[in-house]
Amino acid sequence: MSMAAADLDTVDPLTGFRSRFAFPDPELVYLDGNSLGRLPLAAAERAAEIVEHEWGERLIRSWNDSWWEAPLRIGDKLAALIGARADEVVLADSTSVNLFKLLAGAVALTPRRSRILTDDLNFPSDMYVAGGVSRMFGPDHRVEHVPSRDGIHGPANEIMEALDDDVAVLTLSHVAFKSGYLYDMAELTAAAHEVGALVLWDLSHSAGVVPIDLERWDVDMAVGCTYKYLNGGPGAPAFLYVRKDLQAELSHPIPGWWGHANPFEFAPDFRASAGMRRYLTGTAPILSTLLVEVGVDIVSEAGVAAIRDKSERQTAYLAERWEQDLKRLGFTLKTPTDPVRRGSHVSLGHPAGLGIDLALINDHGVLPDFRPPDSIRLGLAPLYTRYVDIERAVDALAEIVTAGTHHRFAASRPQVT
Amino acid sequence: MSMAAADLDTVDPLTGFRSRFAFPDPELVYLDGNSLGRLPLAAAERAAEIVEHEWGERLIRSWNDSWWEAPLRIGDKLAALIGARADEVVLADSTSVNLFKLLAGAVALTPRRSRILTDDLNFPSDMYVAGGVSRMFGPDHRVEHVPSRDGIHGPANEIMEALDDDVAVLTLSHVAFKSGYLYDMAELTAAAHEVGALVLWDLSHSAGVVPIDLERWDVDMAVGCTYKYLNGGPGAPAFLYVRKDLQAELSHPIPGWWGHANPFEFAPDFRASAGMRRYLTGTAPILSTLLVEVGVDIVSEAGVAAIRDKSERQTAYLAERWEQDLKRLGFTLKTPTDPVRRGSHVSLGHPAGLGIDLALINDHGVLPDFRPPDSIRLGLAPLYTRYVDIERAVDALAEIVTAGTHHRFAASRPQVT
Repeated sequence: MSMAAADLDTVDPLTGFRSRFAFPDPELVYLDGNSLGRLPLAAAERAAEIVEHEWGERLIRSWNDSWWEAPLRIGDKLAALIGARADEVVLADSTSVNLFKLLAGAVALTPRRSRILTDDLNFPSDMYVAGGVSRMFGPDHRVEHVPSRDGIHGPANEIMEALDDDVAVLTLSHVAFKSGYLYDMAELTAAAHEVGALVLWDLSHSAGVVPIDLERWDVDMAVGCTYKYLNGGPGAPAFLYVRKDLQAELSHPIPGWWGHANPFEFAPDFRASAGMRRYLTGTAPILSTLLVEVGVDIVSEAGVAAIRDKSERQTAYLAERWEQDLKRLGFTLKTPTDPVRRGSHVSLGHPAGLGIDLALINDHGVLPDFRPPDSIRLGLAPLYTRYVDIERAVDALAEIVTAGTHHRFAASRPQVT
Repeated sequence: MSMAAADLDTVDPLTGFRSRFAFPDPELVYLDGNSLGRLPLAAAERAAEIVEHEWGERLIRSWNDSWWEAPLRIGDKLAALIGARADEVVLADSTSVNLFKLLAGAVALTPRRSRILTDDLNFPSDMYVAGGVSRMFGPDHRVEHVPSRDGIHGPANEIMEALDDDVAVLTLSHVAFKSGYLYDMAELTAAAHEVGALVLWDLSHSAGVVPIDLERWDVDMAVGCTYKYLNGGPGAPAFLYVRKDLQAELSHPIPGWWGHANPFEFAPDFRASAGMRRYLTGTAPILSTLLVEVGVDIVSEAGVAAIRDKSERQTAYLAERWEQDLKRLGFTLKTPTDPVRRGSHVSLGHPAGLGIDLALINDHGVLPDFRPPDSIRLGLAPLYTRYVDIERAVDALAEIVTAGTHHRFAASRPQVT
């Protein structure tokens, strides 16, 4: 350990961004920014403005003022964070609904290909949606889940072997939600394209914290959520991306009035809008939509490169502390050791994982995530996570297991997060 | 005209409810509560509490505190307003996405029936979604739009004639979005059931303002929005209803983690939750979701019967004023004259409709809706619309046409609402 945590915080170039967020309980160590990002102070102000001025005072006139264009306008800002161009990203619906729309559209483009390919590290919700899409296309279609050999590393080589001209779409999470494994998006995308398959990446655990270059990597489609590292607010609408030259070709099965070329004509027949608007369906939940912009603006200001730099340092710091203080107490590192292959969270396994998780929360004021069967997931959100927070979490983990204070939580059930 | 508008307001039993809403511009006559309901004062307070306390302070712990159950809890409150039972209604997604889920589920139940039946007064978005569902099931499926003979009245008799054992689902808007025609839901539902078809009603323009008794009328499925007469906020999540004994049978094509029997197991296979939770897909936009409760609570307190009573009186007052002052100026009543067959908005046609609409907004501080080709739609929201508001709108309409002040807007395009 070369430098102490407090010293690392002092020289951290992003340290100023912490003041953009609310810390009503300064003692709480929050290591769950990968589940629900913290509240930007500006979001509280913005919420009041939206509710009182835009809804309360302007009423329906706000549709003209700014609401109608918001999913595209905010989408364009988000596009800049993931290497996409203008009119390639919109905010809409939930990640799962967006995934459904795009997967269904993609499979429809290549009806003679029978497989959706994914891995077993993907979000369960993504697997359920892929299953739903596959069933929709009939019994000759199926989803193939390429298994990870260790539950930690994405099976990149095995996926490349499984790719053939029967695969309609390869869909993966850029960063695995449990282990934090980070795929080489460029490599997998190129491999899929070689067999004529489309690719669809779920960026939920990477947008805003890992550099992404959708255009350069020639990615076809992507979806992702905005409430993790983008700090968009609880359950904030998701985003979807479609490569510009695929937009005219790729339709989706839920045409609604928000995707119509001229919605205020109220025509009985659907004519898809040009550009990304065609992927919208119904009226957007405006409050939750508009607050996404506040979070996206902060990430844009800090820059994803700087955020990634700190994220790599912080995951390395945590891995080092694990090696030094936690390994001998029975903790296993369930996240890749290669920093290039990990996102911004680190999972620590322990046979008594659930009890330790609850002791962390209840006795030490440290808020991690628990993922069954035994993983304590520590999310590092570089915009506001300090090295001293990581230090406190590691110290608490060591203290709990050394003192055995987790035993009294042994019969508990996981908390919902 | 028996009583003056101001006197009618004085004896109005709902007059006190107006004070629950924000009126930052007391001069504005807002007749668009059927498009976007006004801001309840309590919603502004609640928004601050959600953002600052629930998100900012409690962070992910709020999922356990109240967020996770919110779509069902608020659904139950809404159920009481539409004659449904507990665990028959949830908040989720948009009306169009919900319609897609349920229509697709319903058609899948009866694959040998090839038609979705609707009318041509339905929301265009509903028609687009029905088209999307139909295409999904292949070229042997189609949507049949039974035409209204006059563009005002729903073709109830013609629909009953068109019902046969080839109809999978009859889907209609309870109240037509342009004309305000109100279907006899019990009669149409019974007729559909006679031929073995399922029914799906869109309650967007009736929930909270027209008495609905889904249980007694034996309705199978319903969807609707919460941002009109329920005052849930711009684009607030929609609701969906499935009759209790149909829930086990009716699946939907977008299974997601929020509908899983045990979502925190993160199992690779989807197992549908019992009850209405199975119709959820992805994470709900929490802010927009929770504010719906404020609006629903106010409607519950006032009672739909009292709201309907005032609504009938107000549409009658407006129809009477049309007869007396507007008819001779070229305005036509594009809403049923029979009060039993109309919802809570009244459409007035005029050859110079668009110009008149813009003159109302810009010169008279009256905010209606315009619906092409020529209709000025006046929405009466009994919780806060006064008779003097209607009077001011009618007087302004007469003044505009008499003075010809609408001519200068003749070349304008409709505003977005």
